[in-house]
Amino acid sequence: MTNSDSLTIEDISQEIEHALSHDSITLAAKALQSLRSQDVVQLMHRLDFRNRAVVYRLLPKDRALAVFEMLQPRLQADLVHALHDEEVTGVFAEMDPDDRATLLDELPAGVATRLLRDLPESELELTSIVLGYPANSIGRRMSPEFVSAYQDATVAETLIRVRSRIDDAETIYTIPVVNRQRKLMGVLDLSAAMRADHDTSIAEIMDEPYSVPATESAEQAAIRCSNLRVLVLPVVDDESRLVGILTVDDALSILEDAQAEDQARISGSEPLRRPYLATPVRSIVKSRVVWLLVLAIGATITVQVLEVFEATIEQMVVLSLFVPLLIGTGGNTGNQAATTVTRALAVGDVRPRDVFKVIAREIRVGLTLGLLLGTLGFAIASIFYGVAIGLVIGLTLMSICTLAAAVGGGMPLVATKIGVDPAVFANPFITTLVDATGLVIYFLIARAVLGL
Amino acid sequence: MTNSDSLTIEDISQEIEHALSHDSITLAAKALQSLRSQDVVQLMHRLDFRNRAVVYRLLPKDRALAVFEMLQPRLQADLVHALHDEEVTGVFAEMDPDDRATLLDELPAGVATRLLRDLPESELELTSIVLGYPANSIGRRMSPEFVSAYQDATVAETLIRVRSRIDDAETIYTIPVVNRQRKLMGVLDLSAAMRADHDTSIAEIMDEPYSVPATESAEQAAIRCSNLRVLVLPVVDDESRLVGILTVDDALSILEDAQAEDQARISGSEPLRRPYLATPVRSIVKSRVVWLLVLAIGATITVQVLEVFEATIEQMVVLSLFVPLLIGTGGNTGNQAATTVTRALAVGDVRPRDVFKVIAREIRVGLTLGLLLGTLGFAIASIFYGVAIGLVIGLTLMSICTLAAAVGGGMPLVATKIGVDPAVFANPFITTLVDATGLVIYFLIARAVLGL
Repeated sequence: MTNSDSLTIEDISQEIEHALSHDSITLAAKALQSLRSQDVVQLMHRLDFRNRAVVYRLLPKDRALAVFEMLQPRLQADLVHALHDEEVTGVFAEMDPDDRATLLDELPAGVATRLLRDLPESELELTSIVLGYPANSIGRRMSPEFVSAYQDATVAETLIRVRSRIDDAETIYTIPVVNRQRKLMGVLDLSAAMRADHDTSIAEIMDEPYSVPATESAEQAAIRCSNLRVLVLPVVDDESRLVGILTVDDALSILEDAQAEDQARISGSEPLRRPYLATPVRSIVKSRVVWLLVLAIGATITVQVLEVFEATIEQMVVLSLFVPLLIGTGGNTGNQAATTVTRALAVGDVRPRDVFKVIAREIRVGLTLGLLLGTLGFAIASIFYGVAIGLVIGLTLMSICTLAAAVGGGMPLVATKIGVDPAVFANPFITTLVDATGLVIYFLIARAVLGL
Repeated sequence: MTNSDSLTIEDISQEIEHALSHDSITLAAKALQSLRSQDVVQLMHRLDFRNRAVVYRLLPKDRALAVFEMLQPRLQADLVHALHDEEVTGVFAEMDPDDRATLLDELPAGVATRLLRDLPESELELTSIVLGYPANSIGRRMSPEFVSAYQDATVAETLIRVRSRIDDAETIYTIPVVNRQRKLMGVLDLSAAMRADHDTSIAEIMDEPYSVPATESAEQAAIRCSNLRVLVLPVVDDESRLVGILTVDDALSILEDAQAEDQARISGSEPLRRPYLATPVRSIVKSRVVWLLVLAIGATITVQVLEVFEATIEQMVVLSLFVPLLIGTGGNTGNQAATTVTRALAVGDVRPRDVFKVIAREIRVGLTLGLLLGTLGFAIASIFYGVAIGLVIGLTLMSICTLAAAVGGGMPLVATKIGVDPAVFANPFITTLVDATGLVIYFLIARAVLGL
C-alpha cells in the first residue's frame, strides 16, 4: 500500500463519516462502494452504535458477511442488537463455529437461544462441540473443522483425503496425524507429503507431535502456538485424542486481546471492549474509575505517613520540597524493574522459583542506580540547600532506588506465585507501596542526619 | 505438553545448571541429551556468557545448528565471540539469508568480513540482496528464498514449478504471482491451486495482490502482515517488482522485539538485548540509568514549584500532607488515558488528525472521574481536616483529573504528529508534567479558598 492509496482510503472514510453526520445516506452508500472490506471494518471502528448499523445495512449481502466476520465480538453483538433477527440469521449460519461461540458469549441468553434455534443441524453440532468447553479455554476458541491423517495411511491416500476436505477444513497446510483411536501421534507438513513418494507411510514423514489440552487457557495456548512458530497447534482432550486445531491467525487474535488487557491493567484500568472512538464515554469512565479509586484509597497511607512526621516538616519546611522528586524517582525505578521482570516472566525467561535470584540482581541494579543518582543529588542539593540537606537527599535517593528495584522486581514473581495476574499487581501498586515506604525512609534519614 | 512433562524439563534444566556451576561437564552433557532443541534454547536464556558456550559445545552438530538458529541475534553474536572461527563457519553457511544479515548487524566489522569470506558463492549472493537494504527496513528481514508463479501459467505448470522449489523456498503455501517483468500481480493460495483444474490459468484463481515496499520499516510491515492475517506478505521494490517475502513466523519475531522495546520505553528504560537472566547487571543498569536521570532532572521542576509556595506551606503545613496523594492520582489518571490512546493509535483505531476529538473525549472522561473522586475527597478530607481543607482537596482532585486525562490522551497523538515514538514520550513524562502543573493548581486553589 503506497501513501497515496492510504490517503484516498482516509479521504473516503472521512467523506462517509461526514455524509453520515448529515444523514446523506445515498452519498455514504456511494462512497462505501470504493472501500475494501478491511477498510469498512476500520471505518466502523470510528463510528457510534447507530451509524455502525447504518453502514452495515448499506453493504451488499456478501460484503456484509465478510465485514461482520472481521468485527470484534463486542461490535458483532452491537450489530445483532441493532438489526432485525432475519437480517442476522443468515450471517450467523455462515460464521465459523469458534467465532460463533465467541459471539454467543457476548449476547443475552434470550437472543442466543433464538439464533441457535434457526441454525442448520450440522452447524449446530459443530458449535456444540466448541460450546462444551469452559469460557476462556482454548476448546472454546479452537476450530473443530480440520482434516487429519492416519499414521498408517500412505501419502497417496492422505493426499486424496486432504483434497476431499479442502473446502471444509480451516487449513490443510499442517495436518495432525492420528492413530485409529484418534490419538494424536504426530504432525504432518503438507509440503513433506508433496515431496514424498506416493507409497510412503505417513508415520515415516511426520514430525513429533505438539499439542495443548482443550481445557488449557486460550491465552497460554496462543503463546505456545506463537513460541513454537507453527501454523497450527493441535488441541487434544484428556486422553490425547484430537478434538480441534488452533490456527496461527486465531492465535494472533487471542494474543492481541490478551495484550490489550495486560496493557490496560499495567496502567491501572480495565480493557475497553470496543475500539476507542466507538466506546461511549460512560464505558471509558467505568473502565478506569474502580482502579483509580482503589489506588487513591491506597494512597491515603501517604497522608498518614506524612502526618506522623508533621512535626519534622514544621521544623524544616524545606524537607517537603523534595517529596515529589524523591517518590517520583522511586516510582520510576520500581516501574522499570517491574516491567522488565513481568516481560521476562511472560516469555518464560524467568520462573516464579527465581524470585530470590531476581531480587538479588535487582538489589545490585538498584544500589548502582542509587549510588549514581544519590551522588548527583547530594552534589546539587548541597549547592542550593547546604551539605546537611544534600546528605539527606543523597542517602534517601540511594535507599529508595534500592528498595524500589527490589520491590519492583520481586512483586511480579510473588503475584504469579499466589496466582494473581502480575499485570494487575503491577506498576500503580508498586508506586503506592514505594511512595509510602520511601517517605518513611526519607524522614527517618532526615531526623538522623539533621538531629531533629 | 502436560504439567508433568514441563516439570521434568524444569528439573533437567535445573540439574544442568547445577552441574555447570560445579564444572561437572560429563553430567551436564548427559542431562542435555534428554532436552529438545527448544528447551535447550530456554536453558541458554538462563545461563551466563561462559556457560552458554559450554552448553553449545556439548551439543551434537545437527542439534547445535538447530539451537543456534533459534537463538536471539545478540546471543548468536555472543556465541560467535566465544567460539573459534572454524566452529562457526559451518553454522553460518547453513543459516537463512535474512537471519544471517541480522546476525551480521550484531558483529564487529572484522568478524563479519571473515565470516562472509568463507561463505559459498550462492549463499553470499542471497545475503547480499538482503544486506542491500537499510537496517530496520523489511528488506533486511525478508526472505529472498521464495517460489513465485506466473499469472499466465496454468495450474499444472505452476504445481510442477512449486514442487521443484519445495526444498529451497521458505514456504510454498502462499505463492506471490508475477507477470513476465516480475511485477506482483496477485497472491495464490496453494489450496486454491490444488482445488482447481490443471489447465486453469493462475490469473483466474489468484487473489488481489497485497504487499509492502522493501524500504518500509520492519515493524510496520510485520504489523501489516499480522493485521491482514496472512501467512506471507510479499515484499516489492520501487517498481512493484517482487523481491522477497515476509512469513508470518518472521513477522511474529519482529513484533515480539517491537513489543519488548515499547514496553521498556513506556516504563522509561531501554529494551534489554538479551534475556533477563543472561544480561549482565552492568547492562541492566545501562538500560535504565539515562532515562532515570532525565526524569529526575525533569522532576527538579517540582522542587522549584514547591519553593515558590514555600511560604504557603509554612503557614499551613497540613497542605503538604496531601502532595503525594494528589500528584499520584494525577499520574494514574494520565497514565490510564495515555495507555488507552497509545494502543488505539498502534492498532489504527485513532489517527493523529483525531487529536481534538480525543482531547474532547478525555476532558469529558477526566471531568467525570474528577467529580467522583473530588466529591469523595471532599467528604473524607472535610471529616478529618475541616470543610475548608476538604474543599481544596475536592476542587484540586477534580481539576487534576481533568488536566491529566486531557494531557495523557493528547500527548501520544502530539508525539506521533511530530514524529516521535509515542511510547518514548509516554507515561513517565506525562507524570512529571502533571506533577508540576498539578502542584501549581493545588496551591493556587489553596490560596484562593483559604485566603492565604
